[in-house]
Amino acid sequence: MDSINATIITIGDELLIGQVIDTNSAFIAQALNKIGVAVVNRIAVGDDAEAIKDALDAAAVKNKIVIITGGLGPTADDITKPLLNNYFGGKLVVHEPSLAHITYIFEEIHKRPMIDRNRKQAEVPNVCEVLFNEKGTAPGMLFKKNGVFFFSLPGVPHEMKWLTETHVVPIIQKNFSSNFIGHRTLLTAGIGESFLAELIAPFEQALPSEIKLAYLPNFGMVRLRLTGSNSEEQILNKTLNSLFESLKKAVVDYLVIDADEPMEVVVGNLLKAKNHTVATAESCTGGYIGHLLSKHAGSSQFYTGGIISYDNRIKSEFLDVSPSILQTVGAVSKEAVEQMALAVRAKMGTDYAISVSGIMGPSGQTDEKPLGMVWIGVANKEKVVSKLFYLRFDRARNIEVTATQAINLLRLLIINKI
Amino acid sequence: MDSINATIITIGDELLIGQVIDTNSAFIAQALNKIGVAVVNRIAVGDDAEAIKDALDAAAVKNKIVIITGGLGPTADDITKPLLNNYFGGKLVVHEPSLAHITYIFEEIHKRPMIDRNRKQAEVPNVCEVLFNEKGTAPGMLFKKNGVFFFSLPGVPHEMKWLTETHVVPIIQKNFSSNFIGHRTLLTAGIGESFLAELIAPFEQALPSEIKLAYLPNFGMVRLRLTGSNSEEQILNKTLNSLFESLKKAVVDYLVIDADEPMEVVVGNLLKAKNHTVATAESCTGGYIGHLLSKHAGSSQFYTGGIISYDNRIKSEFLDVSPSILQTVGAVSKEAVEQMALAVRAKMGTDYAISVSGIMGPSGQTDEKPLGMVWIGVANKEKVVSKLFYLRFDRARNIEVTATQAINLLRLLIINKI
Repeated sequence: MDSINATIITIGDELLIGQVIDTNSAFIAQALNKIGVAVVNRIAVGDDAEAIKDALDAAAVKNKIVIITGGLGPTADDITKPLLNNYFGGKLVVHEPSLAHITYIFEEIHKRPMIDRNRKQAEVPNVCEVLFNEKGTAPGMLFKKNGVFFFSLPGVPHEMKWLTETHVVPIIQKNFSSNFIGHRTLLTAGIGESFLAELIAPFEQALPSEIKLAYLPNFGMVRLRLTGSNSEEQILNKTLNSLFESLKKAVVDYLVIDADEPMEVVVGNLLKAKNHTVATAESCTGGYIGHLLSKHAGSSQFYTGGIISYDNRIKSEFLDVSPSILQTVGAVSKEAVEQMALAVRAKMGTDYAISVSGIMGPSGQTDEKPLGMVWIGVANKEKVVSKLFYLRFDRARNIEVTATQAINLLRLLIINKI
Repeated sequence: MDSINATIITIGDELLIGQVIDTNSAFIAQALNKIGVAVVNRIAVGDDAEAIKDALDAAAVKNKIVIITGGLGPTADDITKPLLNNYFGGKLVVHEPSLAHITYIFEEIHKRPMIDRNRKQAEVPNVCEVLFNEKGTAPGMLFKKNGVFFFSLPGVPHEMKWLTETHVVPIIQKNFSSNFIGHRTLLTAGIGESFLAELIAPFEQALPSEIKLAYLPNFGMVRLRLTGSNSEEQILNKTLNSLFESLKKAVVDYLVIDADEPMEVVVGNLLKAKNHTVATAESCTGGYIGHLLSKHAGSSQFYTGGIISYDNRIKSEFLDVSPSILQTVGAVSKEAVEQMALAVRAKMGTDYAISVSGIMGPSGQTDEKPLGMVWIGVANKEKVVSKLFYLRFDRARNIEVTATQAINLLRLLIINKI
């Protein structure tokens, strides 16, 4: 039994001129992978009938599943529905449950009169199976041709997600049986990609050919992923688990977590397990660390709050960084971040604190303090520890890396490694 | 003269299993658009030699420019370089300037001995033109075949960006002449996509056929984009400018800004123009508003700082939200956000303040306060204004929409519309 292959086609000029970043494809790929469907191609095309038809033709050659997102809105640039209607030789008819739902959304939720344009969203080709869209006004659609399933979903992320989970995945599971696909991912910190490769060279050379090893460097850390597939789920899991244990042993000195979790989730779980809390004092990251700590459900169990001391005055007035520190060693200094961490921890009454102060760019550097220079501090009731980093990225990435490294430094404090 | 077409090929299994979101393509597409190159396809393929070759073959049929990113790292899963070497019939030779640069990075910056694996990164096919990578260890490469230019760039975003700007763009400009492509984008708020389409129906119907109008709804707002191309830049600009003026007039009651700028940049510019400052008091967004306000260069001119009052205790202790408010109407209330805005503004001494408190999900709702209920407050020295929103998204999107709507409410206060 082979794997079932899928192609994702995303539609919209905004994807081709770089106005919008495609996050839908990653979600769909993950959902399909979980049920043994391998995405072998992702194609973005514009709002252009010929280009879309070409992509559909090409996708049908090598895949059993084609997922199409975008172009289902109520405006003239949304051409996907009439095009699919034409491509599959149907005619547009009103889908009554969708019409009732759209009417409900406008009259009961938006409290606005519905217009023709909205009513037209309830029209669907009579050659498709409608995927009822509880979350929005554009119905999803399933077309079948020569054994290939074409799913058309709106591009609005939360509608696409809901339709994928409640319609697409169950329909595929019911109609196709495929090899199981398995991944095991771990996160390392404190070692570069090439040195990591040397460290695990014996492991990598001994890997069976059907198992792939991938290196995913990011934020100054490296994730390692093992991937395999097999018709027997048990055999696959046994193989992957055994290899994953060897891999973990090989990287034990650098291992952060043996799961595909972002750093802030790893640290959140450490805190939750001990009922501990953390507060943040952020200068150069401007709230991004707070955002990372609070973006996942359940974060109120461990994240108490923070001070964003973007202006130096706030560092003095809210975090007791003395004017003499600011005047002598400055805001980007060991003294400043240690005081910030101590103050926010004491004032917010938490078990731990994180603080950062640095120069994210593109300007603000001095002769002594180059672009990318960042001090990070962490504190608990026993001690305060700080570390200096020199980052070499642009502003956006410097902010991301600083935040991730700061949360990692907290992790090291929690597990008594610093 | 036709437009020059390009395809972007991104390489990496991580893109197909949904482990990583592709932000490189958007950057490259924008950079190419600016010089009149239209990206007509974006394809993501795995670390698979056959799939990559197929993508290269297909791309060369319809395009003059092919941009390949990813797979140039030092580990075994990075197969792009040997594959391209093979595809274009070359042999690998050491590129001395790159070797010197890699040596410098390891010995002078990382202060670590260089290993063979790193040295190998300086090897390049002898049939390519090397694009010297000042920002990293993997050289960029340019291959030419039958008039098609194939650029291979590392997938690390800041390296890819630097190589695109300093090598790819100038090389294309020197070797190709193409139609100019122009876009004009504006942002509206306060009107849904379908009603906006009705409002501008006369404008849309009268549009010349060579100009495209696109609707880009996001965060409860809609951007409108006009796109055209012409061999004469002046003619193109004249046509687009004139149509854009008409479009602006048609949407004047809902117009936020006549440029493709995010809301926080619009508001940042309004504040900078008057030398005004803002502070934030965030509960449910946990620092994300601070992050948006501070992520762009120059934000220290107007963003002073904030309090992240994630825990209710912080709302009382730092923002003087009285226990009686918390006990009667609760933290998600008009009273709470208005007090939060007043307090953070007074304590941080700013001209304006933003505050938010809401229920982002997936839990935390009560009978009276459903998921997605959010109060937003803004204040200046004359008044405090608050507004209630009911959002219907998932946690991540609720946070984003809340932040954008909060910054929009500040905009309305600044321009005296509330």
